[in-house]
Amino acid sequence: MTSERLKKQIEFICEADKLKNIFRQSRIHDGTRRENDAEHSWHLALLAIILSEYSKEPDIDLLKVIKMCIIHDIVEIDAGDTFCYDTQANLDKEEREKKAADRIFSILPEDQAKELRSLWEEFDAMQTPEAKFAAALDRIQPVLLNYLNKGGTWQEHGITKEQVINRNKHIEDGAPELWDFISQLIDQAIEKRYLRP
Amino acid sequence: MTSERLKKQIEFICEADKLKNIFRQSRIHDGTRRENDAEHSWHLALLAIILSEYSKEPDIDLLKVIKMCIIHDIVEIDAGDTFCYDTQANLDKEEREKKAADRIFSILPEDQAKELRSLWEEFDAMQTPEAKFAAALDRIQPVLLNYLNKGGTWQEHGITKEQVINRNKHIEDGAPELWDFISQLIDQAIEKRYLRP
Repeated sequence: MTSERLKKQIEFICEADKLKNIFRQSRIHDGTRRENDAEHSWHLALLAIILSEYSKEPDIDLLKVIKMCIIHDIVEIDAGDTFCYDTQANLDKEEREKKAADRIFSILPEDQAKELRSLWEEFDAMQTPEAKFAAALDRIQPVLLNYLNKGGTWQEHGITKEQVINRNKHIEDGAPELWDFISQLIDQAIEKRYLRP
Repeated sequence: MTSERLKKQIEFICEADKLKNIFRQSRIHDGTRRENDAEHSWHLALLAIILSEYSKEPDIDLLKVIKMCIIHDIVEIDAGDTFCYDTQANLDKEEREKKAADRIFSILPEDQAKELRSLWEEFDAMQTPEAKFAAALDRIQPVLLNYLNKGGTWQEHGITKEQVINRNKHIEDGAPELWDFISQLIDQAIEKRYLRP
């Protein structure tokens, strides 16, 4: 007999599989297709493992950071991916995502629903050292992909340097040295005409 | 100036993006396409977060388990995915994967190359409590996908119950209660004709 608890956990795990069908604007390294939220979340977790030494706060809880990376986009199963430079779509993003969180996390047993919901809210608020670092990684990853794609979504949507800086400058709050690196990469992107000055 | 250390780390992160192009036999929940190694690895990390209470060894290091889930398939960038029921392809799997590990992990700074290589070897050897639990998750996830796909790769390749049991029974070494659940699911799969008796 499978317990009610395990049934709920398995149901959540199967529901979460839908994240593999939510596609982002960014393309994978070779430009052949857009990446989906599941592989993006995997990539963030890998960045967390490799780059944790650059966190502004040295005594960061890496397990918490990685959990945030794994679950931060799950609400997009219902709410969809909102392109960061689409100001119109961003107006009701918060409402759509809160509604999604209500439905999706509550599939889990109550204690886990609470834990994951709270992790997601913490990530979203970007106030704790772990959330600031995870949010920095969430900005760095698409910049790398756009650079590998010779401009990628910047080119597609005619994005300017100012927009990219405004979107990404809070990398500095979570990982100052990585912001130095990303700033230089943005300058190189302009030199190479991947990005408009 | 970007340090040599950070350059190597970024190079590894970009190289790892190729995992998004390595496709497995299993299909995602709705059967529309095969899943790739990056999203499979994300799903395993999510399973680790949700199911850690079922580990046979109660005092498991969850951070280590999740790190294993994130990096366990990276060698397949060079070695490719080897279908578990393909006995021919499994003959030189170890050799191919060792060669891949030599190249890919050594992109990283030496300390991190060592850490990740050692994590991957630990996962592969399935001896420690963390490796046994991570390996159990790596078996459970495709069984769930095959069930959601009404047989999936079992149907495609005419796999029998005996093969599925032999492939998956060591789930019991890492998570006995989850093996009970998976055994029942296999029986249900036979009742529903998703799997040959």
